[in-house]
Amino acid sequence: MSSDLSIRPVTRQDYQQWLPLWDGYNAFYERSGPTALDPEVTRMTWSRFFDGYEPVHALVADSGGQLLGLTHYLFHRSTTAIEPSCYLQDLFTNAASREKGVGRALIEGVYQQAKLAGSPRVYWQTHETNLTAMQLYDKVADRSGFVVYRKML
Amino acid sequence: MSSDLSIRPVTRQDYQQWLPLWDGYNAFYERSGPTALDPEVTRMTWSRFFDGYEPVHALVADSGGQLLGLTHYLFHRSTTAIEPSCYLQDLFTNAASREKGVGRALIEGVYQQAKLAGSPRVYWQTHETNLTAMQLYDKVADRSGFVVYRKML
Amino acid sequence: MSSDLSIRPVTRQDYQQWLPLWDGYNAFYERSGPTALDPEVTRMTWSRFFDGYEPVHALVADSGGQLLGLTHYLFHRSTTAIEPSCYLQDLFTNAASREKGVGRALIEGVYQQAKLAGSPRVYWQTHETNLTAMQLYDKVADRSGFVVYRKML
Amino acid sequence: MSSDLSIRPVTRQDYQQWLPLWDGYNAFYERSGPTALDPEVTRMTWSRFFDGYEPVHALVADSGGQLLGLTHYLFHRSTTAIEPSCYLQDLFTNAASREKGVGRALIEGVYQQAKLAGSPRVYWQTHETNLTAMQLYDKVADRSGFVVYRKML
Repeated sequence: MSSDLSIRPVTRQDYQQWLPLWDGYNAFYERSGPTALDPEVTRMTWSRFFDGYEPVHALVADSGGQLLGLTHYLFHRSTTAIEPSCYLQDLFTNAASREKGVGRALIEGVYQQAKLAGSPRVYWQTHETNLTAMQLYDKVADRSGFVVYRKML
Repeated sequence: MSSDLSIRPVTRQDYQQWLPLWDGYNAFYERSGPTALDPEVTRMTWSRFFDGYEPVHALVADSGGQLLGLTHYLFHRSTTAIEPSCYLQDLFTNAASREKGVGRALIEGVYQQAKLAGSPRVYWQTHETNLTAMQLYDKVADRSGFVVYRKML
Repeated sequence: MSSDLSIRPVTRQDYQQWLPLWDGYNAFYERSGPTALDPEVTRMTWSRFFDGYEPVHALVADSGGQLLGLTHYLFHRSTTAIEPSCYLQDLFTNAASREKGVGRALIEGVYQQAKLAGSPRVYWQTHETNLTAMQLYDKVADRSGFVVYRKML
Repeated sequence: MSSDLSIRPVTRQDYQQWLPLWDGYNAFYERSGPTALDPEVTRMTWSRFFDGYEPVHALVADSGGQLLGLTHYLFHRSTTAIEPSCYLQDLFTNAASREKGVGRALIEGVYQQAKLAGSPRVYWQTHETNLTAMQLYDKVADRSGFVVYRKML
């Protein structure tokens, strides 16, 4: 990892660089073209990062002013803890910056923020076929053995 | 399923019957004896069900005044939707009432509440070895293919 | 008060009747014409009523399908209570329905909802020159002796 | 104001110094002796400052490691804005530090935090007989003309 990498909260000034990372992340999950995320969702999510009432946050990986990656995380209640859970929902590094420790630094940035926020656990989901990502995840966290069911209403 | 089953929000008066269901649920996840959930967590979770500021809710399966099962669900933000996600965190039916449709009725009760709350999706987690539960889940929802990583801080 | 008045949560179907009441309320506070509320705020506030994650609610006074008034209330934290405070932010009755108990019924509807939500107190603000409103408020609540300071940033 | 005064977020390590300030504040509002705040409320409020899901915050005025004052503020929804309102609920300076700019520095600290949190307004309440406080408030904010009604349920 280049020594000048810094993991920091996103600012409003980052929008132009954040957007292509977010689009790249969404494209990876096939939310592009006709199945793209509604721009209104992007607008709302972006505004939530800067709304002190919303427990939704973003960190970016900044190398000399150039953004190489992003992570979005949020706090929510849990029935088995007094403190909130921290859900790391999104993680993305641009193609040129892969396998250089950017993803790992972003995850560890979330760990740090979660600790500051009194959250005893961070969790995330990944697709069972995403073996590349799991190589990293197996180093920094535990595969819980839990799988996700969902129902679109 | 006995025809007199009703799925309804928990009330403060349900505490005496809710508690053994909650304890049974926790025991299933090996949160009993020396690894039992801190009673203060139970107290807080119970109080959150009745706190209009907290997006944490409980439904119970009531058969003629006897509680046969419970489900706890909560709403939280998502970066890919304007509307909140609905996380069905806990589901439990007492031993005598299994395979009679109680679990399914509870899940469908959450679907209904989530719809009323404007949530486009309900999701939950189950352990990959819990084949019994999956028999039901495969009927009422989709196995997403996502697995859960976590890190205790 | 006409005997068929019902105080009930707003529904999505009420929009056409809710909007002129909301506009009338805003006009009373001189938010009309060039100083009108941004329509995007109205859109957001309306959507929050139906978002299960948001502690923002609306009741309407319905007389045979005709909406005569509205009230909006929300729950928020307080440092001097475990339970949330209930802030009754908006109250409005259309001109033809004044002095018939509609406003009082709406306030009492909020009291009932706040009780259900575990909130020990409901409060609101009114301008010190609004003597008409205070005639009602002095009957159903206490003038606290507190005045409001504010700073626009 | 002594030049070494710093306004900063409270930390867990501040508890021993924060508590007497909080008690002093409560005593001013006659929450002492038989009418004292339940210690469980204090415990909960303290824990909320460090809970990343709760929009409840505290700043302290620190002079060389000695705490001279506190302010507690929270964000909540409003029906007339997309962004949250910032309610400055508590403000207190110890007796020895009055009229030295500590209260003003704390209020301005909240203004700064509210701006960072995207909140367009900060407001608070004070009793109409508290002329001493109003001398300060009239310098840093606007008396809105609104008075507070409340109902204990």
